[in-house]
Amino acid sequence: MKARVFVTLKPSVFDPQGRTVAEALHTLGYDAVEGVRQGKYFELDVRAGTPGEARALAAEVADKLLANPVIESYRIEVGEV
Amino acid sequence: MKARVFVTLKPSVFDPQGRTVAEALHTLGYDAVEGVRQGKYFELDVRAGTPGEARALAAEVADKLLANPVIESYRIEVGEV
Repeated sequence: MKARVFVTLKPSVFDPQGRTVAEALHTLGYDAVEGVRQGKYFELDVRAGTPGEARALAAEVADKLLANPVIESYRIEVGEV
Repeated sequence: MKARVFVTLKPSVFDPQGRTVAEALHTLGYDAVEGVRQGKYFELDVRAGTPGEARALAAEVADKLLANPVIESYRIEVGEV
């Protein structure tokens, strides 16, 4: 089963990487892109009987290793593929 | 309008970052996580009249700056928030 984990900086945390991407886009003429936040994306192949089990495992793993809960939040999606 | 861009290495490209995360998880006892692929995640605030317009802009920006089309592929989701 696939679990997708999206890790982003919390809204109150400054995101210099995203800011740099936004500035580069403005330099290229893409003024319609008003802001960019960058995050991390993980695709986990998990051995789990049910989607709920896969989600619980992904949440545990995100808390322990993938995200820094002080400054980051995460979102999980579970699917067969 | 929000456009979310997920950039991942193509399946045929070796992903040392994901491999390292997978090994760290196995060391922590999470053997049920069989594999990990890591990618990048961008949230763009775009000024666009329609979702289609936002998607087209995000695709252009992904091709030009966010992804390296030789080794990476991307997926786009568009939403109001």
